[in-house]
Amino acid sequence: MPGILAGAIDLGGTKILSLVVDDGGAIKGRDQRPTQAERGLDRVLGSMVESLRRACEDAGVGLDALHGIGVAVPGPIDLEAGVLASPPNLPGWNDVPLVRLLQERTRIPVLLENDANAAAVGEHAFGAGRGIRDMVFITISTGIGGGIIAGGRIYHGATGAAGEIGHVVVEPDGARCGCGRRGCLEGLASGTAIGRNGEHAARQGRSSALGEVLDKIGSVTAEDVSRAAQGGDTGAKEVLATAAKYLGIGLVTVVHLLNPQMIVIGGGASKIGDPLLGPAEAYMRSHAFPLMAASVRIVPASTGDDAGALGAAALVLNRDLIESA
Amino acid sequence: MPGILAGAIDLGGTKILSLVVDDGGAIKGRDQRPTQAERGLDRVLGSMVESLRRACEDAGVGLDALHGIGVAVPGPIDLEAGVLASPPNLPGWNDVPLVRLLQERTRIPVLLENDANAAAVGEHAFGAGRGIRDMVFITISTGIGGGIIAGGRIYHGATGAAGEIGHVVVEPDGARCGCGRRGCLEGLASGTAIGRNGEHAARQGRSSALGEVLDKIGSVTAEDVSRAAQGGDTGAKEVLATAAKYLGIGLVTVVHLLNPQMIVIGGGASKIGDPLLGPAEAYMRSHAFPLMAASVRIVPASTGDDAGALGAAALVLNRDLIESA
Repeated sequence: MPGILAGAIDLGGTKILSLVVDDGGAIKGRDQRPTQAERGLDRVLGSMVESLRRACEDAGVGLDALHGIGVAVPGPIDLEAGVLASPPNLPGWNDVPLVRLLQERTRIPVLLENDANAAAVGEHAFGAGRGIRDMVFITISTGIGGGIIAGGRIYHGATGAAGEIGHVVVEPDGARCGCGRRGCLEGLASGTAIGRNGEHAARQGRSSALGEVLDKIGSVTAEDVSRAAQGGDTGAKEVLATAAKYLGIGLVTVVHLLNPQMIVIGGGASKIGDPLLGPAEAYMRSHAFPLMAASVRIVPASTGDDAGALGAAALVLNRDLIESA
Repeated sequence: MPGILAGAIDLGGTKILSLVVDDGGAIKGRDQRPTQAERGLDRVLGSMVESLRRACEDAGVGLDALHGIGVAVPGPIDLEAGVLASPPNLPGWNDVPLVRLLQERTRIPVLLENDANAAAVGEHAFGAGRGIRDMVFITISTGIGGGIIAGGRIYHGATGAAGEIGHVVVEPDGARCGCGRRGCLEGLASGTAIGRNGEHAARQGRSSALGEVLDKIGSVTAEDVSRAAQGGDTGAKEVLATAAKYLGIGLVTVVHLLNPQMIVIGGGASKIGDPLLGPAEAYMRSHAFPLMAASVRIVPASTGDDAGALGAAALVLNRDLIESA
């Protein structure tokens, strides 16, 4: 006898990931396809439903076996109205009533959550943060985002935007962030920032390894910096050390404000691993109040690219995880 | 017919404040006396109970009319064990089992909370934050502290120390804070910091008004800086503007992480009012994400020095306010 099943769709700027998940967190079916956002809202909606149908086939069930569908979406949403605002990586999508549109097409209850919060819930429900009461999830990729689990539930704040860890100020009047502000953590420690600072080091002749990359490819990524640092390149090591220090400052602020039991770190750039996360954690441990530092564990995310979809499924499977509005 | 009554004791380094509070937040009885911490634990405990007895007399009831006693205490506590750790302003108090000691002396259930959290609860239950779901309380006095209300309840974090807003990092490698770290908000925008920076301006000849104060009194307080700024002194205005900018940076970080609906600001130094809080709020509004900035109100605390005791009473009156451990 199968348990309760949830459908989940993680709608990204480049890909749609659909999962069918049971109440133990086991993935029973899966489908992935490109978003092709340029084809417009209607075609993307069709793709989302088709992708979920395929994931159901993969699980050996029909769409009607799903208890509900959780959808993780980029950027700001109106949780109560079920409306997706204007996600920067889905151009032309403005105030899309995604809950209504998907419910009309599937006749199944639909829940919306932003992708960083969904990933936090995914790690809390089925990943590294299982059973943790107060947890902070930080994702480091091209940008830096996050989500807060408070008392075992996702914490939304006034507009569902809580957990914008990438825009904690760590260096007033520091480097310009993608958001237009200065000194945000994201502008100093994201994958984009690490790549940009690596390129800068190459142009200044401070890194021979990255200089070679720049000459050959014309640009430098965080991955290049990581590889060069592993190869012993001093300039690349300095770039990582600077990013790690700012990440450490951000961790101190998170620990002092939220006193979490666990900080889970995921996202592509977090795969740099110890050369970035080691010194960041060490900075936090030497700069935060000892009692608060001693009571927080920092661990890597364990659900990888499935975190957002798993969290969206968890929200369907356990509506109690949703903070009462 | 009287409603439920709670007793509350706010134990500070210099004074003990006791209140008898009904379930509507009305103060029915009050007593205040010096702590005289130097007399030792036993005498202070006696004073606390005697003070509460007097507050009961003032309310026209006996101690046994109290539903419970809430106690607000400085510094770190072990919430579950009801033990007060080592408060910096109660020297010699180490791991005092305050809940047990007071229950033995009163035969009434006792609840402990740290003073910043208690004040947050006081403002939320009976002050400026009534009915607000997600609220942050910031107290600016000699130090800077705070408390977080998440989903209508006090948020404790792993060790009950969440809300250390004074130790959010706003200027890495900035001025040394009282905690020994560098660049904490408290070290740059507290009453102590404003006074110290005013004294510095006086010594450097950048403020004639504060120079006079320094010559006459030998030191400069935040109040002196405020008065000199109001009188048009340029140096004093600069000192306040600098503190306001750092306070603004702290507010941006709080808004981006917690997305609260309201930030309540109390504490002695907050009485400087608009010359400090105005530019701090303006900085936040021009530097935080517009949607998040638009959904937060910044308001002054309304319960003054009673906030901590009122919050301790509220915790007794509505145990539901206590986050489930």
